[in-house]
Formats: sequence, structure tokens, C-alpha cells
Amino acid sequence: MQNEVKRQEPAPIRWNLPVDDQIDLLRRGVVDLVSEDDLRRKLAKGQPLRVKLGADPTRPDLHLGHAVILRKMRQFQDLGHKVIMLIGDFTAMIGDPSGKSKTRPPLTLEQTRENAKSYLEQCRLILRQEPEVLEVRFNGEWLEPMGYADVIRLASRYTVARIMERDDFKKRFEGGVPIAVHELLYPLTQGYDSVALEADVELGGTDQLFNNLVGRALQRDYGQESQVVMTLPLLVGLDGTEKMSKSLDNYIGLTDEPHEMFTKLMKVPDPLLDNYFTLLTDLPRPRIEELLAGHPVAAHRELAREVVAWFHPDADLDAAEARFRSVAKGGIPENIPTVTVPAAELANSADPERISLVKLVVLAGLEPSNGAARKLMQNRGLKLNGEVVTDAQASLTREQLSQEGGAVIQKGKDKFARLVLGS
Amino acid sequence: MQNEVKRQEPAPIRWNLPVDDQIDLLRRGVVDLVSEDDLRRKLAKGQPLRVKLGADPTRPDLHLGHAVILRKMRQFQDLGHKVIMLIGDFTAMIGDPSGKSKTRPPLTLEQTRENAKSYLEQCRLILRQEPEVLEVRFNGEWLEPMGYADVIRLASRYTVARIMERDDFKKRFEGGVPIAVHELLYPLTQGYDSVALEADVELGGTDQLFNNLVGRALQRDYGQESQVVMTLPLLVGLDGTEKMSKSLDNYIGLTDEPHEMFTKLMKVPDPLLDNYFTLLTDLPRPRIEELLAGHPVAAHRELAREVVAWFHPDADLDAAEARFRSVAKGGIPENIPTVTVPAAELANSADPERISLVKLVVLAGLEPSNGAARKLMQNRGLKLNGEVVTDAQASLTREQLSQEGGAVIQKGKDKFARLVLGS
Repeated sequence: MQNEVKRQEPAPIRWNLPVDDQIDLLRRGVVDLVSEDDLRRKLAKGQPLRVKLGADPTRPDLHLGHAVILRKMRQFQDLGHKVIMLIGDFTAMIGDPSGKSKTRPPLTLEQTRENAKSYLEQCRLILRQEPEVLEVRFNGEWLEPMGYADVIRLASRYTVARIMERDDFKKRFEGGVPIAVHELLYPLTQGYDSVALEADVELGGTDQLFNNLVGRALQRDYGQESQVVMTLPLLVGLDGTEKMSKSLDNYIGLTDEPHEMFTKLMKVPDPLLDNYFTLLTDLPRPRIEELLAGHPVAAHRELAREVVAWFHPDADLDAAEARFRSVAKGGIPENIPTVTVPAAELANSADPERISLVKLVVLAGLEPSNGAARKLMQNRGLKLNGEVVTDAQASLTREQLSQEGGAVIQKGKDKFARLVLGS
Repeated sequence: MQNEVKRQEPAPIRWNLPVDDQIDLLRRGVVDLVSEDDLRRKLAKGQPLRVKLGADPTRPDLHLGHAVILRKMRQFQDLGHKVIMLIGDFTAMIGDPSGKSKTRPPLTLEQTRENAKSYLEQCRLILRQEPEVLEVRFNGEWLEPMGYADVIRLASRYTVARIMERDDFKKRFEGGVPIAVHELLYPLTQGYDSVALEADVELGGTDQLFNNLVGRALQRDYGQESQVVMTLPLLVGLDGTEKMSKSLDNYIGLTDEPHEMFTKLMKVPDPLLDNYFTLLTDLPRPRIEELLAGHPVAAHRELAREVVAWFHPDADLDAAEARFRSVAKGGIPENIPTVTVPAAELANSADPERISLVKLVVLAGLEPSNGAARKLMQNRGLKLNGEVVTDAQASLTREQLSQEGGAVIQKGKDKFARLVLGS
């Protein structure tokens, strides 16, 4: 799933930048900041801050939605602050024991570790790896030794009314949708993680505002200085309406190939451009305004080049762009995978001179099954040498496969395979 | 605080009484029974039931209010069922860590053990002691080893909405009075005690109905047969309005002397007589009706004799009654404590022939301080040889103390001391 991670050496850390300059950098794209005064006060001490990001080790495939927050973490690192990646291994192992939540199925220790490893590997695409600015922790460290009395003491620090202010709890309670008692304990646990880590700042999506404010309050109760809570927007996906997510297939993966990433970025709906520029590039505000005022294609092009260069610093951006243009015009790009069709596959066919197109689509890995391949064709999603083929009974001859350059099949706009006959 | 416990041998256990007869006995005075069918089914198995009563080891002085439930427990014992006295030692040690509840200050392990010992000693006045019908347990046994994950699993069994149905929670939540999150965990913990004990029946006051029903529900979730929940009324105290309690001074203590108990019982407000007869005696219903229809004094007399004989089986009931009558008529009873006034007390007075009445009241132990003694006199609460004395400057002469029979002082209706001069 991951590509080999090859990164350039990061630029040197900019230690002790003046507080105002740090605030300017860190505020970019931020929705909630509770509070700027506190952040200013903490920065003024001139000590590296401890910046926490909690991760639920259940969804191992990262996309640009995750990159928004990780990018902010990286900004803290570039200023010499220490980022703490907190893996909720213990909570993930418990899951939702009532079995009512699909988002919290319990995981085994092995799954948790495997997911965490994959998660952290992907984070390396964005975060600095120097130990003075990166710390990885697991909450089992302090949750595992907690006893009944400790849980009671923790739970005594917060009132039911305050927990029930959380939007989803409030709606469920008022709507008569059951909330199990343990669900009230999770925000407290998450807050207690901040106490255990002595976090100075906690980052999260806007959906984490409430939980992270619990941490802020608990730290005060435990005699600590309260953490600053900073939230970032949830990135809207390529469909232009829903939050970017793998399950909705409206995402751009962090490990997507340059040309794939480029092509997807060229499809970002116009109204989202400003957001994508702000959250995923360092372009200064005036330049963003200029781009937004100009032709959308030029703006998309700049966005695509910026983001691709971020994840693929060695990529040939011109080549990625050329491929995008060629495909956009209906052409067949130069570097597409070649799939060798074993001669035996024809020999085993009913007619040894022919092989069905459905079978070839599966062989080329464009669809997982014959059924899916047939459906693709019925939906006009498959081209053979640039022509749409809808007949699921269609087949290719030995001769067609043996031609110079073989036969090219294409799924949708940008998935190609060149089929050649093997021996 | 306790008298030496001298009890007669209890009557033999009545094993295997027919189910209907057991139900008849056990239903007496009961407010809630959830459910009679379940109780019938459990009794029909012919096995001793496990009957749980939870005790918070914080209030060591028992009174007739406690006796109501302990008497019901004793009825179970007399039928051969096993009573389980559950001491909430672990929960008491935690107390209310938010410090918001006055009824749950944390106790040390030592205090908890001391209180539990005193509580169980007083229970011996009512309960049978044979090990086959009495089991004492402490909830630290299963709560102490519980970890964070166990608490989460327990809390996942119950919804916030169901917990918030509890009357006091509902009122507080709606009225904006804070409820700390750990308070929601206590009913679950109490319910889990029933799971750990595999209780068949749980007894409690009507104020415990909700908590005990939680136990009933949890047992089902843990794959056990659900306990029967049985509640008894909260006994109203001698003031006729408030629940009997030590702090309101409207109580009759289990260790009160026969004449003290007799006198207090003669003062039970008429409207409470039916309740007291039902809950604190075995008199059959027709006899109670007859007494209630007759003269109240006769009814009180019967109540007093029944209850005093219960706690003091060897007491001379006629003597206790005679003393009550004598005092009621303003007389001085025969057996009152004699207090010897050391001659040195006079010698040290300003006038060695006199000693102040205030000082004597304190010496006799009728009031704790001179100030309290003066107040008592100002409130017309003190008699000297049958006459009210209100002058706080009053004194007694050496001669008065040296007379045959000394001088008798009396606080209120029934506290006497005979003062005689020592050497």
C-alpha cells in the first residue's frame, strides 16, 4: 500500500522565531483557537511546546484530509516545537463493548500495532523525524494501570451536563437515541491523555473541538497549565459536498502516484480552491487571491503542482501535467503499465484464437471480477484502443494482441493497461 | 455506644414452608415487589435464596428506621434463606472525590472497617448469626481488581437515558444542578455487586428502588437470572413528618434502654401507629385494626411492649411501663442514676457552703457545658426536686446536698440525676 518513502533532507528548524511571526504562521487555516492569548503566553517562554495529536489506530489509509492537520503539526516542528503523536491503542482494544458503534469495533493488540505502524509510516511523508521534534506515545501506558478508583476520580472532575453539551450527545439524548454510559467516559479519557502528556497544544479537526476542550479543563483540575486547543477544517472531498474519506471515494491518497494526484487535483471543485490553497500549500494570501481571480484551470494547475511537489519532491511535474493533458484530450499517455497475457490463457479458451474482453479487464487488474468487468462495460466505462465497448461478449483475437504496441484498454478517464501476448 | 448483646436462642429455622405461606410472610409491609412472579418462581425451586442488603459503612448508629429492613432480612433467615450483608467498603473509601456530596466523604480503610464492625454488631440485635443464613461480604473484593477496561465494559451495559430517569438525577439535570460523571457510575457499581454476589433478592428502602432495578437489569446482561427487588417504606420519625434519622433527633436507637425506648414509643404520633405496627411487630392484621379502633394510649402501650421486648427480651416490661407512667405524671422514678458531688467542688467555690446549679447540671452529665446548662434553665427545661428553676445564678447549699436522698435534678421529661455529697 505504501510507496518507498524517499524524502529530501528537511530545511533547518527555525528556532526562536519572534512570537508574532510564529502566531502568523500557525494561525493560517485555523478555525478555533482557544485561546490566542494562551498560545502567545506559552510561546513567549521561549521553550519548545508539546503539541499533541490523537490518533485512533483504526483507519490506516491517509489522504489529503489528514494532511491538513499533519501539515499544521509540521509547521510547529519547523519552529522547533515537539509534536506528540498519541496512538489510542488501549481505547482501540476496548472498542465499543456495547457493540452499538460501527466506528469502534474492538481491535486485537496485533491489529492495533499493525495499524499504528502503517499510520506512522504515512505520517513520515509529512512530519519531521528528528527525535527533538517528534515523540510517539501509546495511551495504554497510563490507561492500562488505571483501577476502578482512578476512573471514579477522573469521572468526578466533569459534570454530566457539560459532557451532554457535545452536539452529537445532545441530539441523541433529545432524540431518544441511546447513549451508553461508557461513551461519556471516552471524552474524559481523551482529556486525561493531555494530562498524562502535559500537552501545551492539542490539534484536531473541528469535530474534535469539544473533546479537546475537555482536556483543557481537566488539565486545570489536575493543577496543570491548560492546553491551547486549535482546530482545522474538515477538508471537503472531490465530490464538493462530503468530508474527504476513503469510503466515499472522494479522496486523494497521500501515496497516490504523481500523475494520479495531479489528475485528481485538477478536478477539485472551483468553490473549494481557496480552501485547498490555504490548507495544503504555503502560497501567500495575495498570490491565492490572484489565482482565484484568474482562469480556474491555471489555478488548478498551480494547486496540483504545489501539492504533487509536496508529496513527490523528485517528481517530474511537467511529465505529470503532460500526461494529464493527453488523457484529458482523450489520448493515451506514454507511460502506462504493460500487462502480458499468457499464451496459455488463449489456449484454454473455447476458441483458442480469441480471449474475452471481460477476462482481459480482470487480468489487467482494472476490475476484481468478471461481474464487475461486465458492469463496467455496460456502464460505458471501458474503452478498447480509444473506443467505448459495451458488449460484454466482445473478445480480442490473437492477432489483435500480437500487433505492434498490443491493445490498450482504458477504465474511466485515467486507468490504462497495454495488453501484449506472452509466450 | 453499644450495650453488651445478650440474646435468647432464636427459634428454629422453618425450612421449606410452602411458597404461598412464605410469600404471605414476606409481602408484609413491602412497597415495591419486582416481581412477585419471579419471587414465586425462585421460591418454588426449594433452594435457599441469596438475599442481599447493601450497607454504606458511614453511619454506625442504627435506629428503628434501619430495623424495618433488617427485620425483613430476618424473616428471610427464619425461612432458611441466606442473607448477605454487603459492606460497600471500597466505594466508601473512594467517597465522592469531587467533594460535592456531604454524604460521601472519603473514609480511610481503618474507619471503614471500624464502622462496618460497629454496624454488624448492631445488626446482630436483629439478624440470626448461623453461618448458613448469614454471609458478610465487602465489595472491595471485586471492585479493587477492576481495571479501566472493566469499568468501560460495565458502563457499556447501561444507557445514560435510563440512568437519568432516576428521580434525583432527573430533577438535578433539569434544574441545572451539576451531576458529576462518576455519580452515574455508582448505580452501575451497586448493580454490579448483585452480579458478583449472584443475588436472588435485593432489599432496600423505597429510595433504593432505582438502583436495585439497575442490578436486576445488569444481571440479565451478564447472563444471570434477574434478582427480585423488594422495597420497604422509609420509617417516619417521632416528629411525624421526616424520615427517622439521628441528625433530626426524631429517632429511637436500637440500643436505647428499655424505659427510654418505651417512653419514646409512647410518643409515636397517632397517624404513624399503623405503620409502626406493620413494620416493627408481628401482630396479625385483625389485631392491629382492633388496636387502631380502640384508645390510642392502649395501642401505644401494646406497640411499646412489643418493640421493647424485641430488643430487650429479658427486660421487665412492667417496670419500664411503670417508670413511664410515673414520669408522665411528673413523679420521680425509682431507679435513677446517683451522681456523687466531690466535696472538693464546694471547697473550691467562692462560697464553700454553696455550689451553682449550672455546675451541677454539667457534673451530672445532663448538659455538656455551663453555657448549655444556662440555656436549658432559661428555656424552663430544668427542675430541682420537681420545681422549675430558671435563675441561672441559683445554687445549692451543702445542706441541701446532704439531706436524705440528696437533691434530684431533671432535664426535660425523662432525664434524672440524684445528687449526693461525697467526701
